[in-house]
Amino acid sequence: MTTTTQDSEQEDTTINFQGDEAVQDQPQEQGAVSKIALLDADAIATHLDPAGIKAAVARAFCALADGMAVQPPQTLVPLPGDGGDFIVYSAADLASGLIGVKVSPYLLKRGRTHGDPVTAYTLLLSVDDGEPVALCDALTLTAHRTAATSSLAIDHLVGSRTRRLAVIGSGPLARLHVRYELRSRRWDEVAIFSPGLAANPSLLDGWRGEMACDAISVAASAREAVDGADAVMLCTSSGVPVIDVDWLADDVVVTSIATNAFQAHEIDPKRLNSFAVHCDLRATAPLQAGEMIIAAREHGWRHEAIIADLPELLSGLRSGTRHGRRFFRSTGLGIADVAAAAYVKDQMLSSLPKAV
Amino acid sequence: MTTTTQDSEQEDTTINFQGDEAVQDQPQEQGAVSKIALLDADAIATHLDPAGIKAAVARAFCALADGMAVQPPQTLVPLPGDGGDFIVYSAADLASGLIGVKVSPYLLKRGRTHGDPVTAYTLLLSVDDGEPVALCDALTLTAHRTAATSSLAIDHLVGSRTRRLAVIGSGPLARLHVRYELRSRRWDEVAIFSPGLAANPSLLDGWRGEMACDAISVAASAREAVDGADAVMLCTSSGVPVIDVDWLADDVVVTSIATNAFQAHEIDPKRLNSFAVHCDLRATAPLQAGEMIIAAREHGWRHEAIIADLPELLSGLRSGTRHGRRFFRSTGLGIADVAAAAYVKDQMLSSLPKAV
Repeated sequence: MTTTTQDSEQEDTTINFQGDEAVQDQPQEQGAVSKIALLDADAIATHLDPAGIKAAVARAFCALADGMAVQPPQTLVPLPGDGGDFIVYSAADLASGLIGVKVSPYLLKRGRTHGDPVTAYTLLLSVDDGEPVALCDALTLTAHRTAATSSLAIDHLVGSRTRRLAVIGSGPLARLHVRYELRSRRWDEVAIFSPGLAANPSLLDGWRGEMACDAISVAASAREAVDGADAVMLCTSSGVPVIDVDWLADDVVVTSIATNAFQAHEIDPKRLNSFAVHCDLRATAPLQAGEMIIAAREHGWRHEAIIADLPELLSGLRSGTRHGRRFFRSTGLGIADVAAAAYVKDQMLSSLPKAV
Repeated sequence: MTTTTQDSEQEDTTINFQGDEAVQDQPQEQGAVSKIALLDADAIATHLDPAGIKAAVARAFCALADGMAVQPPQTLVPLPGDGGDFIVYSAADLASGLIGVKVSPYLLKRGRTHGDPVTAYTLLLSVDDGEPVALCDALTLTAHRTAATSSLAIDHLVGSRTRRLAVIGSGPLARLHVRYELRSRRWDEVAIFSPGLAANPSLLDGWRGEMACDAISVAASAREAVDGADAVMLCTSSGVPVIDVDWLADDVVVTSIATNAFQAHEIDPKRLNSFAVHCDLRATAPLQAGEMIIAAREHGWRHEAIIADLPELLSGLRSGTRHGRRFFRSTGLGIADVAAAAYVKDQMLSSLPKAV
């Protein structure tokens, strides 16, 4: 009544599966997984080009505007106990021909052994045949696409005066925000504040050399940093406001990234109504941005008040506000993860020696 | 003001990323992606063991019951235009130490060129350090975990009489359901019906040889197949009922898988109230099973009526009903995808030659 020969088992691998009925006429491709591009952190490091990544992220937002891409909300899954969580970011972009899923665990156990609790990996599949094309380490790419997104927002929201840039935070995301901004436009002064930096200003020495920019300075306080700034980039993982809105100039654009932590925010939600609000994607940001959730619940803010999101700004469907107090919030989108991973994959493949 | 040397770019790959602040003390593992196990359809084919897969799936459901695993709902993402969709199944199982994400595109374009529109790939990451451990072709595994799930349900719902098994459908899923059932218990008669099979009964010749079972026969109609059956396994991608409940014996267990198509169902939703209803997971099945959605909306069925789900049945927390008309619905769970992929990955790794 039973048989366990391998031959009989192997039959299954060549039958196709359509819903629950068989289509047995076409063999499945057997080697798809072995043929994908594997991009480790090392491989990615040689292909990180801010201009290229920013352009790729811009194209992805345009694809969303054109109805050529789709962006569902991210999914945060808490692990049993207090071990951490993982977030799944997914998207599809017909313009680049890719479906992508990024999974990013936040593991307290890893934090204790490795110092950093976060990893991130992106799997790309072809939207033509559904086969995988690349698996890549997405930790550094996540920081790059976040900085690219904020810089795209500044492109569309900054006024005619770009004298002073303030950055709150001094981690890798803050550093990348400065790098992307310095490549996007001229800033006469770049004032950075974080508590750690105030205690140890020499941390910035590496930044100045890397970016060949003497305009970067350490501020003694967040208030001093943002004083008179034309743009303020909040680059922290804070769950509570890191600046007081009253410190800001009347004509300023503020970008905010915060984190995926529950209702995390970098400005006082009560003051959201005093800004012209913009975001990365109006369909998802109000579901995830802490200050938007709290402002909607407690302070009468309505998501309809969002002036424009990045697909609208980049496609020209809507214009951003370029005067007064403007706010831009990004929550992190799979479509940008797909774009960044695809850019680096393409760079890697095009740099390989061609077969003669 | 700008620098594009590779050296400066590479710095980013060794800084760690904690939320948005830096933890720069620990280098990131550079080669994690290159070290993962890649399981193509060929590699998987040599490690498909129904008993092993069924046991692995059972352990995963027990982990859910024990609070050691977590199972969010699946996410279906329609592609722009009418190109198809993709579904993301995710889960984490601390008992097996894995986070897993399966992405399964349904692409009409692939259907036209390859015959089969569906692919599926599962990425496994360690829940200890967040690094990827395997990427595997999950198309065949999806069919196996589905058959394993149905057979686990039969284990807990079938009565003392197991004389006649009816199977509706003759595709790979139907075939696997029969194989898993024949290895799980004795059936004197196995009656199969599908329209294609009725037209070409010789399709079954391969089944009889594969399963070394002469009891398998072709029924002339669905009604003839289920007549007097002690268990009926519905293994179709139908969106409408494939049997009439009035044809069933009074003492029968019916399993149903249907598909992810909108509100797909294999029995009349109006008759759901006449069954003792069981499912794979009570937290998610009522959100996805077409007959449950329709029965709740139009026929006064309430999800609280679910007698037990598989975690409850397997852990002994609740007993299944073993008499009268019983219904078991599975919708497909990431936790079973993770279990099946992990089982095959472990089999493959343990079969590799050991380093001396």
